[in-house]
Amino acid sequence: MPARHDGDAKPAHRSRSVSSPTVAEVAAEAGVGKATAARTLGNYGAVSPEARARVLAAAEKLHYRPNSLARSMTTGITQTIGVVVADISNPFFAGVMRGIADACDTTDYTAIVLSTDEKLAKERSAIGVLIDKQVDAIIIASAALQPNETAHILEAMSRRIPIVLIDRKVRGLDLDAVVINNRESAHDAVRRFVELGHRRIAFVWGPTARERAADRRRLLALAESWLWSDAERLRGYLDALDEAGIPFDPELVTHCEYNEEVTVGAVGEMLALPDPATAILTTETDAMVGTLRAIRAAGLVHPRDVSVIGFDDSSWASVMEPPLTMIAQPMLELGRAAAQHAFARIAGDDGDAVVEAIPTTFIPRESVASPRTRISAADGR
Amino acid sequence: MPARHDGDAKPAHRSRSVSSPTVAEVAAEAGVGKATAARTLGNYGAVSPEARARVLAAAEKLHYRPNSLARSMTTGITQTIGVVVADISNPFFAGVMRGIADACDTTDYTAIVLSTDEKLAKERSAIGVLIDKQVDAIIIASAALQPNETAHILEAMSRRIPIVLIDRKVRGLDLDAVVINNRESAHDAVRRFVELGHRRIAFVWGPTARERAADRRRLLALAESWLWSDAERLRGYLDALDEAGIPFDPELVTHCEYNEEVTVGAVGEMLALPDPATAILTTETDAMVGTLRAIRAAGLVHPRDVSVIGFDDSSWASVMEPPLTMIAQPMLELGRAAAQHAFARIAGDDGDAVVEAIPTTFIPRESVASPRTRISAADGR
Repeated sequence: MPARHDGDAKPAHRSRSVSSPTVAEVAAEAGVGKATAARTLGNYGAVSPEARARVLAAAEKLHYRPNSLARSMTTGITQTIGVVVADISNPFFAGVMRGIADACDTTDYTAIVLSTDEKLAKERSAIGVLIDKQVDAIIIASAALQPNETAHILEAMSRRIPIVLIDRKVRGLDLDAVVINNRESAHDAVRRFVELGHRRIAFVWGPTARERAADRRRLLALAESWLWSDAERLRGYLDALDEAGIPFDPELVTHCEYNEEVTVGAVGEMLALPDPATAILTTETDAMVGTLRAIRAAGLVHPRDVSVIGFDDSSWASVMEPPLTMIAQPMLELGRAAAQHAFARIAGDDGDAVVEAIPTTFIPRESVASPRTRISAADGR
Repeated sequence: MPARHDGDAKPAHRSRSVSSPTVAEVAAEAGVGKATAARTLGNYGAVSPEARARVLAAAEKLHYRPNSLARSMTTGITQTIGVVVADISNPFFAGVMRGIADACDTTDYTAIVLSTDEKLAKERSAIGVLIDKQVDAIIIASAALQPNETAHILEAMSRRIPIVLIDRKVRGLDLDAVVINNRESAHDAVRRFVELGHRRIAFVWGPTARERAADRRRLLALAESWLWSDAERLRGYLDALDEAGIPFDPELVTHCEYNEEVTVGAVGEMLALPDPATAILTTETDAMVGTLRAIRAAGLVHPRDVSVIGFDDSSWASVMEPPLTMIAQPMLELGRAAAQHAFARIAGDDGDAVVEAIPTTFIPRESVASPRTRISAADGR
């Protein structure tokens, strides 16, 4: 291994790379025009089989290797899609990535991924890297919440790099977006609780703000500064309460950090109220795991004492005892659809921005029951 | 949005990129030497504050923008680490990625990730993209099983790109590797079963081969063509059986595809044997979920009827009823350590290849019990 680490490794590598023959040199060697050589080496457009064979032979003889800049100069196509996700360790984004990779497999594109940990500074740097690496399009789940946080995205747009938003719309950006029907999905889940007779329905996770929103108006104002998808789920929750004539109770919406540990305490408080929560909608996997721990810590069991429905299905949810009723996000479809939008823009589609909302799938299992079961169980204690 | 999609978008973008001024032009404008301009623009080495200010002013005036090739020509550093993982949707790799990203956060590096779906063809293409994009180092969980499948890795090595293997060693490649202590971890888990009195201990997942290995020698021969990490876990299992004087029974090692659905059937067969498995070690999350479904389908419960221990802890495992005893892989540490090895090689470390084995953590919960409980429960039926 020392051979690949000797002192002059870098310079030797770089100068070899730089001294790669140009497309013009390959064309001259092959006795064809430069455009023909570029089409052959870039693998696009029509080239006669004979000319193609001569170009490839010349390229091999001269040790031509297309690097990304050389390729982009000759063909305008570097054939990479940059993907910027909030958290690569979240199974949701892992699934989305899988969908994007699947779509790339059917083309000559390769997806390269950068994770930002929901931090705007890292997102800016990621976009900078993707501009430098000359990707052909960018798919991004942006952490930007407000129009004044989008300068880096506008910068990429100004360089005419097609951008597709995924999972979240961003206020102030008129871009293609592929999202789920967040509001309808939350509305539907809460309506199911209502139809079984629940009136004390909780929403986990609400705002991360420490101070509790005193009323519905304040809560919706807070939501204006959230990620779009989170705010939409809250709106769906409120829609269902309105529909059922159930007054909004701020004590049934968590105001806590988005982590499992803190959630255990926050949900524990809801379960200890004089008029406790009897049904809980969770918006993320960690919110569900924290909720289940809180239910257990309170000596309760689902669904007898508390019904639960969660966003983001997982194979684990099906082996919980009893199995969990979940809202499955179409992760693969989201990724595939975003990639298709990116391919269309790369190919020159200059139509208006399209927002595609892909519906979730409700997976009924056994974590939802009527609240009467809980009351009778409590009576029996 | 039409502005970023008009017909001549690509050419305009590319030609602007190509016509960016050179470092020499910026140096001339600033009235400094080319080396000083390169150091300032590349943000490395010592430059006087005054010279730096003049270079930056000149760069701004000339609309200089370092692209990856320009930057690598001037500084030799593109400041990106390429990461090639087998499956980005596997929480294990997601955690590893998080560790790599954490390490990059403390430096000026950015990690870009490509997923190969354990397919060698996609891995080859991923390495090609990373060479083209001129990453400074590559961290890879390779799908290569045999020395004759490593040409693409040798190609990157010949270009003096430092490469660090993660999760798996690859036969025939003498490279830095960061792995877990697979063999010892499996040995330890099986020894715990043995100490509780188990003799019928199963291993899920064994070979994907359809034909069952008739004996231990054949099984180990099969393992020679597996991923290194899987083979090591099997060896640890056999070590523990040997230690306890328990004969190897091929019926207690799955011979099935690596997916949850097929695992349900394979484990179901083990539980239906005249002398059934009373303890099961699983090597992956999907193997555990499939095993739990098989246990439930057989009308059994853990740990009363069957004890289980699995590789890859998850927050779900702690809320299973009863909670699962797991072997937690140090995913973040693996990622961080691999990144540190990559940084060291980039900085010029030319020492011998280092294999770093990071120990797992055994997380005792409530899915392991003595087999006597099962026998007495069965007697009581």
